[in-house]
Amino acid sequence: MHRHTQPQATAAPPAAVLQEAVAHDDAVNRAHTHADAHTHRSVAEHRNAVRALLEPLRNAGHTERLALSDALGRGLAEDITAPLDLPPFANSQMDGFAIRAADVPESGAELRVAAPVPAGARPAPLQPGTAAPIMTGAMVPPGADAVIPIERAVPAAFPAPGADATVRLPPAAAGTFIREAGSDIRAGEAALAAGTCLGPGQLGLIAALGMPDVLVHRRLTVLLVTTGDEVVEPGGQLGAGKIFDANGTLLETSLRQAGLAVIRAGISTDDPAALCSLLRRHAPEVDLIVTTGGVSKGAYEVVRQAMDGQDVHFGHVAMQPGGPQGIGTFDGVPLLGFPGNPVSCLVSFEMFLRPVLSGLLGSPSPRTVVHGRLLEPLTSPAGKHQVRRGTLLPDGTVRLEGGESSHLVRALAQSNALVQVPEGVTALAKGAEVEVWML
Amino acid sequence: MHRHTQPQATAAPPAAVLQEAVAHDDAVNRAHTHADAHTHRSVAEHRNAVRALLEPLRNAGHTERLALSDALGRGLAEDITAPLDLPPFANSQMDGFAIRAADVPESGAELRVAAPVPAGARPAPLQPGTAAPIMTGAMVPPGADAVIPIERAVPAAFPAPGADATVRLPPAAAGTFIREAGSDIRAGEAALAAGTCLGPGQLGLIAALGMPDVLVHRRLTVLLVTTGDEVVEPGGQLGAGKIFDANGTLLETSLRQAGLAVIRAGISTDDPAALCSLLRRHAPEVDLIVTTGGVSKGAYEVVRQAMDGQDVHFGHVAMQPGGPQGIGTFDGVPLLGFPGNPVSCLVSFEMFLRPVLSGLLGSPSPRTVVHGRLLEPLTSPAGKHQVRRGTLLPDGTVRLEGGESSHLVRALAQSNALVQVPEGVTALAKGAEVEVWML
Repeated sequence: MHRHTQPQATAAPPAAVLQEAVAHDDAVNRAHTHADAHTHRSVAEHRNAVRALLEPLRNAGHTERLALSDALGRGLAEDITAPLDLPPFANSQMDGFAIRAADVPESGAELRVAAPVPAGARPAPLQPGTAAPIMTGAMVPPGADAVIPIERAVPAAFPAPGADATVRLPPAAAGTFIREAGSDIRAGEAALAAGTCLGPGQLGLIAALGMPDVLVHRRLTVLLVTTGDEVVEPGGQLGAGKIFDANGTLLETSLRQAGLAVIRAGISTDDPAALCSLLRRHAPEVDLIVTTGGVSKGAYEVVRQAMDGQDVHFGHVAMQPGGPQGIGTFDGVPLLGFPGNPVSCLVSFEMFLRPVLSGLLGSPSPRTVVHGRLLEPLTSPAGKHQVRRGTLLPDGTVRLEGGESSHLVRALAQSNALVQVPEGVTALAKGAEVEVWML
Repeated sequence: MHRHTQPQATAAPPAAVLQEAVAHDDAVNRAHTHADAHTHRSVAEHRNAVRALLEPLRNAGHTERLALSDALGRGLAEDITAPLDLPPFANSQMDGFAIRAADVPESGAELRVAAPVPAGARPAPLQPGTAAPIMTGAMVPPGADAVIPIERAVPAAFPAPGADATVRLPPAAAGTFIREAGSDIRAGEAALAAGTCLGPGQLGLIAALGMPDVLVHRRLTVLLVTTGDEVVEPGGQLGAGKIFDANGTLLETSLRQAGLAVIRAGISTDDPAALCSLLRRHAPEVDLIVTTGGVSKGAYEVVRQAMDGQDVHFGHVAMQPGGPQGIGTFDGVPLLGFPGNPVSCLVSFEMFLRPVLSGLLGSPSPRTVVHGRLLEPLTSPAGKHQVRRGTLLPDGTVRLEGGESSHLVRALAQSNALVQVPEGVTALAKGAEVEVWML
C-alpha cells in the first residue's frame, strides 16, 4: 500500500477553498494526500458509516401493512409463522385410484370402483375392498393410504360416474403418490424471517398460508440533487464546456429500481446558497438526501460549501472510482454526497447505499454475487478497492467494458456486472477469478 | 429416453372426458401416454410456439415515447445513434494545471499561472509559457494539450484568482490526464440497439447524449385467471379439501416484476361456462390471457373444457414440473394455460413466457444464467427437462431446495435460482456442474 507517494503535498498550508484543491476521484493511480489523511476509509468502513446513518429508518413507525401484490419488492417487517399445515390435508399427487394398500396383494387385485373424488370436495371414507377415482390435489378419503396412477390401472380409464364397475390395480406401499399434510411446512414452523425481500416466491408462500396482507417496511423517499455549473438537462441547449446530466437519470432510476420514491429537485448550480435553500425546501418531506458532485477538494465544490455548519463529513474512501464521499445530516436528514462522474455515482450507489438498504430493510434484494474468469488482465491502484464494469458471459468468463475511467457511460451501458478488485490487489492475469456483482 | 414405458395405456379407448383422465404433471418419473403422443413437445419447441403466438405484439402501434425515468425496465423500440461526441469536448481528468507539453522540458519548468478554468466555462486560449488552473471536467483551453495534477505542482495549491504567481511543474506527454472528445462514444456511432432492456446504465447513456425521451414497447396487459373448485382467496375461510390460492399472487407478482400490467379476474370455479363468460368479459381489454389449472387430462379440466370451439391446443411439454400446457387464442386473444400447481406455474412463466417477452420486446431483462456445482446428487426423469429449485451460494455451489414435487411452495420461497437439468440427463453426482437461472 502506497497511499502517500507525494510527500511534498503534506506540506500544503491551510488555505482558502481555492487553495485546498487536490486530486479528484478519477481514473488514475495517484496519491491521496495530507491534511485529510484521517478521513481515509476502506470500502467496508464507509459502508458501515452509511449503515449507522440509516439505521434509524428501520425503527418502528416506518412500517405499513399491504395487500400481497402491493408488497412486491418490499422488505418483510415481521416474522411469519405458518398458521396451518401446507398442504392443509393429505392429497393425491396424481389422477388415479385411492386405495387401502393392504387391500392389494403382491399379485394385484380387482376392486370395486367407489364414487370419484374431485379436488375441493370432502370425500366419504373409503370402504375396504374399493378404489375411489381421485384427481390431483383432491383430499385422500379417510381410510385410503395410497394412490395408483390411472395409467397403471386396467382398464386405464375412469368409469362413468355411478356405473357399477371394477378395476384391476397393482400393489403399492402405503403413502405412494400421497402428499402428506404438512409435507411442505407445518403449522407453527417459521415460514419467513423479518428482513426477507418479498419476491413472487415469498408472496406466493404467504398467499398459500392464507394471509391476504403483510407488514413491510415503508417505501423511503429520497431527494436527489445533481450539481454543477457545467450540467444541462437532457433536451436542453448544450453550450461550450457543458455536458448533459446523466447522473440524475442514472441515480433516479437506480433508486427507483431499488424500491425508493425519488424527488428530483433539478440541477443545482455551483452556488452554495442556492443549493442550501433547495435542500431546505425539500428536506422535511424526505428520509434521505443524495447529491452528486461538489464533494471533492477542488476549487468549486458546491456541496462541501453548502454543508458549512451542518454535520456532514467529507473524506476519501479507498475505492476507484467513487473515492470522494460526503456523509452526514442536513437539518437532521441523512445525506450522502456522491462524486460527480456518472460511473462514480453508480458505483457509490451500488457499493454503499444499495447493500445498506438491503441489509437494513430487506429491500432491494441483494445483488447476485458470482465468480468469473477474466478474459484479459487488469491493473488496479495500490491501496484501493477497484470496481470495474464488465459483462459476465454465459461461459463464466468476464469481459471488461471500457477502461477504468469514470466518465465512460457507454461502457457502463454495455455492462451487466461490476467487477470487484479488492484493496491490496494491484494486478490480475487473464483467467484470474474475480468476484462480480450482477447489475 | 423412455417416454412410453406403460404400453397398456396405449390401448385406452376414446371416451368421454371423465374417461380420458391420465397422468398429471407432477413429481414422478412416469409415462406419457398414447393418443396424445403427437402433442409432446420439447421445452425449446414449446418456447418457439409461445414466441410465434406473441410475435405480433412486437409490431408497430405497440410502442410509445416516454420520458427517460418513465422508461425504466422497458424494451427499447428504436436504434439509438449518438447525436454528439461523449465527452462533447476535451476535458480535464484531474484538478491541476493545463499546459502545453512542449513548454516543459525533461527537467521541469516554472510557468506563469493563467486565469483558472472552472467546469462549465469556455476558456480563453492558453498562452505559450503559462499554466491554467483547471478543474476536473472543465474544458481544456485551446492550445493546452496536457494536465499536471495539482499535487505534482510546487507549490501544490492554486494561487488566489488574479494573483500574479508562478508554479513549478514536471513534464508530461501530450494527452496526459485529458479525456478527449469522443473517447467514450463518437457522434454517429451506434449507442443502443432496439430490443435493449433499459436499466439505469442505458438510460444514463441516453441522458448523457442529451435525449429527454425514448421510444419503447408499450406495457402489455395480461388477464390472469386462476381456476379450481378447491381454491380459496387468501383471507377467506378454508373448508375441508380446500387450499388457498398461491398461484394468483405468485403469477401476478411475477408478471408485474416482468413489467406487465395485470388484471386479476379472481378465481374461477370448475364451471366451463362461467370461465368462458369471465374471459369474454375481459378479453377485449388485454393483450394476453394466462390461466392456471385445468389443462391436464383429468376428469375436471375446466380450461380445456372452456376452450371448446376456440383455437387452443393442449399438450404435454417434456418438462418437470409444468408438463401440461395450453396454448392458442381465445376470441383472437393469445392465451397460455399453465398447470395448477404453484411451482409448475412459476416454472412455466420462467421457462416460456418471460424469456419470450425478453426476446421479443427487450423487457424484462433476461435472467442471469450462471453455472454452479451441485452440493448433492439428483435424479431426473428420462426424456424430460427437469427444473429444480435451489440456492446458488456465494462459493458457487448450488443447494437444492425441497424435492422435485411441484407443490412445495416453501422450498420455492427459499430459493434464489432455478436449476436446469436438460432432457436426456437422468442423474447428476454431487459436484456436477449445472446451469442455474437466477430468480
